[in-house]
Amino acid sequence: MKAEIICVGTEILMGNIVNTNAAYISRGLAGLGVSCYYQSVVGDNDGRLAEVFNEAAKRADIVILSGGLGPTEDDLTKETVAKAMGRQLIEDEKAWKQIKKFFEKRDIKYTDNNRKQALVPEGARVLYNKNGTAPGIIVEGEEVTAILLPGPPGELIPMWDDQVVPYIKEKSDVVFVSEMVKLCGVGESLVETELKDLIDAQSNPTIATYAKVGEVDIRVTASGTDEKAAHKLVKPVVKEIKKRFGSYIFTTDENVTLEAAVMQLLDENKLTLATAESLTGGMLTSRLINVPGASEVIKTGFVTYSNKSKRKYLGVKRSTLEKHGAVSEQCAKEMVKGCQTATKADAAISLTGIAGPDGGTDEKPVGLTYIGVSVLGKIKVKKFVFSGEREKIRESATATALTMLRHSLLENLTERTFSEQ
Amino acid sequence: MKAEIICVGTEILMGNIVNTNAAYISRGLAGLGVSCYYQSVVGDNDGRLAEVFNEAAKRADIVILSGGLGPTEDDLTKETVAKAMGRQLIEDEKAWKQIKKFFEKRDIKYTDNNRKQALVPEGARVLYNKNGTAPGIIVEGEEVTAILLPGPPGELIPMWDDQVVPYIKEKSDVVFVSEMVKLCGVGESLVETELKDLIDAQSNPTIATYAKVGEVDIRVTASGTDEKAAHKLVKPVVKEIKKRFGSYIFTTDENVTLEAAVMQLLDENKLTLATAESLTGGMLTSRLINVPGASEVIKTGFVTYSNKSKRKYLGVKRSTLEKHGAVSEQCAKEMVKGCQTATKADAAISLTGIAGPDGGTDEKPVGLTYIGVSVLGKIKVKKFVFSGEREKIRESATATALTMLRHSLLENLTERTFSEQ
Repeated sequence: MKAEIICVGTEILMGNIVNTNAAYISRGLAGLGVSCYYQSVVGDNDGRLAEVFNEAAKRADIVILSGGLGPTEDDLTKETVAKAMGRQLIEDEKAWKQIKKFFEKRDIKYTDNNRKQALVPEGARVLYNKNGTAPGIIVEGEEVTAILLPGPPGELIPMWDDQVVPYIKEKSDVVFVSEMVKLCGVGESLVETELKDLIDAQSNPTIATYAKVGEVDIRVTASGTDEKAAHKLVKPVVKEIKKRFGSYIFTTDENVTLEAAVMQLLDENKLTLATAESLTGGMLTSRLINVPGASEVIKTGFVTYSNKSKRKYLGVKRSTLEKHGAVSEQCAKEMVKGCQTATKADAAISLTGIAGPDGGTDEKPVGLTYIGVSVLGKIKVKKFVFSGEREKIRESATATALTMLRHSLLENLTERTFSEQ
Repeated sequence: MKAEIICVGTEILMGNIVNTNAAYISRGLAGLGVSCYYQSVVGDNDGRLAEVFNEAAKRADIVILSGGLGPTEDDLTKETVAKAMGRQLIEDEKAWKQIKKFFEKRDIKYTDNNRKQALVPEGARVLYNKNGTAPGIIVEGEEVTAILLPGPPGELIPMWDDQVVPYIKEKSDVVFVSEMVKLCGVGESLVETELKDLIDAQSNPTIATYAKVGEVDIRVTASGTDEKAAHKLVKPVVKEIKKRFGSYIFTTDENVTLEAAVMQLLDENKLTLATAESLTGGMLTSRLINVPGASEVIKTGFVTYSNKSKRKYLGVKRSTLEKHGAVSEQCAKEMVKGCQTATKADAAISLTGIAGPDGGTDEKPVGLTYIGVSVLGKIKVKKFVFSGEREKIRESATATALTMLRHSLLENLTERTFSEQ
């Protein structure tokens, strides 16, 4: 099956917003085993949209459009597609009821314009929208199926996940099953090298890698006549990947982030965590606190950006700062120790480094970072030199700190389990 | 002048990476006054790339392509475009020298594959690449000009800024000048309403608004026969915008972020800042510390996520927590006061709220946030209810805190100036 994506919106053509919808849909299609050879962006203009839609309809089985379903006159995706597919627009009663309810709940007056959003091409399947007013629409034509989705990602994503994915699965004569394996502490090129024989050897399942800062995700996708058959193909490959990467794997759940995996490890073992950040200035703590339920694990974090603050709140010795400087192994060690002592947390983490652009020397270049981790009294400090701009250095340090903490937790928790036996 | 953008890369079609290049180029074109009606993405496939390129060449004066200039066989943008435009590929001596130097400097061996990167269509203008191996290329044809750029943003962005922008300016018989006005503390719809008469009244200059979390940017772009003439058109409109939005404007410098504007205000007035975050858990401090030179302003930040931590480090009273709860005006007030007292900073800021998804009640819903600001001893606390998911609520709170701090600084600094007179 072949699909194409058309994102409609002048704001994308003006560079006002980055087209994350296309990436999200593309990734979803890849996971479903649907080929996507073209993405297009076109403004809210009926002539140009019709041209792009007709071109896509010639090439693909499914054309997925996002945006242009709003209440204003500028929004004309629905009108253009309906015309191209020879359908009249009629009001969908349930959609109109939901739109009214949406406004009433928020105590906002609706206008006649909003009623336009309840119009759908005759014979269409309506995708009701829990997170906004514009319903999504599936129009099945003889040659092509058009799927229209609202532009805001907060509306598009749940509609895609809950309604479009099941629809495409149902339509497909083959079933696709995919599993994700997420790694930390290992680079993408090494992952690809380690997987090369697997990647080269087979076309079903396919293996794709996705690199993020401090993280590599591997997706294994197989097709089969039914779910069971596809699963059977995915399973041994995932097993082999698990064998090869072992404890570098922090999750096999697509929705779990690295910080969530670390927080889960702490929470399951009823451990609390305190942080002492200099270089990253709150970035690490902020990522951890973004995980729901963080209050069970994190009680206190310090941003100790000045030497004085490092001394006052973490008990770093004046002599350490004078002799070795704030960006040193010794300072990172005293920071993490002091942080754990002050907060009585079970685990602590410290970061100190030079984010740049200024402040680097030959001996201590921009990017030099020391990360300290303390788990149940055992302290480890490591040195890194990260590259890139200020923000990139801080992001790399944050991801590396999460990886180091996870590693120390696994090490110490295993030991604890053994000694408890 | 009309341009189109074609981004080449299977990784974009697979949803592996988000197409930030298209957004960057689009924004650049808008700033240059060049119309862009279509963006396309196509994989590393010569047939499909040729089809998309030929279609674009029919419609536009300039076709800008990014990606597919690498050393491997998959990379065929150059070959495809050269063929479509009837040009032979010949080696550019200077490009080959630079490629060799690039590898030698990094102590990496180059292969014959890399020599492929020095090939350019005959008669082309070569854009030498300081940040990678693939040179960019401009091929001027009779009907269309093709501009080929490398895919990695770290190579594309400087090449665009330093070489393509001057080229397009030079080619254009009109000159475009644009100015940016950035606002905080006011919503996009209000900005648009306030500007409606200006937007409707004129086509040169054009006025475009860009909304971010807690921020609205306005870009005014005018065309003229020369820079002076275009400036003359922009100036009165910017002046009128400044008059209408006054102190909501935090900068007219495109490269200055809201956090940088706040930091500058603090730094110029030799004021230090301390932070006390609960809800945002370090996000605010991290944004501020991302500004180079932050160490002059921020010495200490607290993430006081637990009640105990709020009491211990900020001196919030137990009775306050018992009577009003941690998410209350009283608590935000004591947090900001305690933060300033403990750190002896000139200014302080506190955030407490319910980020969700759990923990909300009818009385205190998810999104409820109190922000406290203290500037030179004067304290202000405000209540907000932010909407969206956990991360969105935290981002909104962070941006709002920056706006509130800026406002308090302006208020108090003006007063100080007056009393000093």
